[in-house]
Amino acid sequence: MDGEPRSGCPINLTMEELGDRWSLIIIRDMMFANRRHFRELLTQSIEGIASNILAARLKRLTEQGFITRADDPTHKQKGVYSLTEKAIQLVPMLVAIGAWGRRHLPVSEELSIRARLLEKGGPKMWDEFMDELRALHLRPQNLRPQDKPAAGCASVLQKLTAAYQEIARKRARRPKTA
Amino acid sequence: MDGEPRSGCPINLTMEELGDRWSLIIIRDMMFANRRHFRELLTQSIEGIASNILAARLKRLTEQGFITRADDPTHKQKGVYSLTEKAIQLVPMLVAIGAWGRRHLPVSEELSIRARLLEKGGPKMWDEFMDELRALHLRPQNLRPQDKPAAGCASVLQKLTAAYQEIARKRARRPKTA
Repeated sequence: MDGEPRSGCPINLTMEELGDRWSLIIIRDMMFANRRHFRELLTQSIEGIASNILAARLKRLTEQGFITRADDPTHKQKGVYSLTEKAIQLVPMLVAIGAWGRRHLPVSEELSIRARLLEKGGPKMWDEFMDELRALHLRPQNLRPQDKPAAGCASVLQKLTAAYQEIARKRARRPKTA
Repeated sequence: MDGEPRSGCPINLTMEELGDRWSLIIIRDMMFANRRHFRELLTQSIEGIASNILAARLKRLTEQGFITRADDPTHKQKGVYSLTEKAIQLVPMLVAIGAWGRRHLPVSEELSIRARLLEKGGPKMWDEFMDELRALHLRPQNLRPQDKPAAGCASVLQKLTAAYQEIARKRARRPKTA
C-alpha cells in the first residue's frame, strides 16, 4: 500500500496491497512453479513481464513483507526469493480467484488444470500445500522440491505440476488448428 | 479485460478483469450495502470514489457483464443497477479476500465484522447469501430487502448489516482518542 489507505475494509485494503496487476502473478509463479530467481521469473513468464516492472514489483513485494531475498548458496552472485508466511496464506484466496475465473472467463485447459485440482481438493489439500510451501520457502536449505516423490506420496506441488505438464505435452503433440 | 488477455491463466484473467482498484469496491457496495443508484454509490462511498471514475467503472462493469442497468420503476429519471449471476458468484472469492485481509492488514473493527461472520459461516452461509442476492438483483420487482425480517429468520444480509451497525453505533458513542 502506498500512503494512507482509503479505508479499513479488508477487501479495499487487500486490493490496495495486491491489486496492481503484477504482484499476484509474481507470487503465483513463485508458488506454483517454484521460480526463485529473477531470471527465471523474467524469462519463463507466460504473461511476458518486462524486466523493469519485475524489478520494481520484487522490491515492493519485499517491502510489503510478501517475499524475502537472500544470497543463493549455489550461485553467490544471485539472489534467491522466498515467499513469507503472509504470502503462503494467500493460497485459499488464489484458489477462490481461480475457481471463479475458470467458470466465467476464457481460460486455457493447461493453465487452469491446477486451479481445478486445488478447488476439488478442498481445504485439506490447501493446508497440505501451504505446509509444503513453508518447507520450501521458510527454510533456506530446501530451495528446490525433491525431484522424485517417495513411492505413493507425491506432494501436492508435484501432483499439480504433473497434471499441468501432461496437458501441455498433449497440446504440443496436437496439430495446430488456428 | 481490454484487448487481448496476456494469458489464459484463471488468476491472470481474473486480475485483468477485476484488478483495477475500483471495480470490486463498487460490486462490494452493491452486494453488502444494496446501493443500487449512482448517487448512493457516490455519496455513501467510504473510499470516496470520484464521480467520473464511478461513471466509467459502472459503464465498464456493464460491458463486462457484472451489472445491468434498468430504469427505476419508482424514479423514472434514475437508473437502477443490479448484479448479474457472474457478479453474485464472486461471493466466495470476496470472502477469501476478506479473510486474508483481516489477518494481515490493518482493518477496522466495524468494516471487518461482516468478513468475519461470512468466514465463520462457511460455504453454507455463502450459498444462502448468494440465493438472497439472486432474489434482490435478478428479479426487478425486489429492489429493496425487506425492512423487517420474519420472526426468527433474519436473512444473511440483515444479520451482516445488523452486526456492522452495532459496532458503528458503539464507535460513535465512544469518546475520540487521538
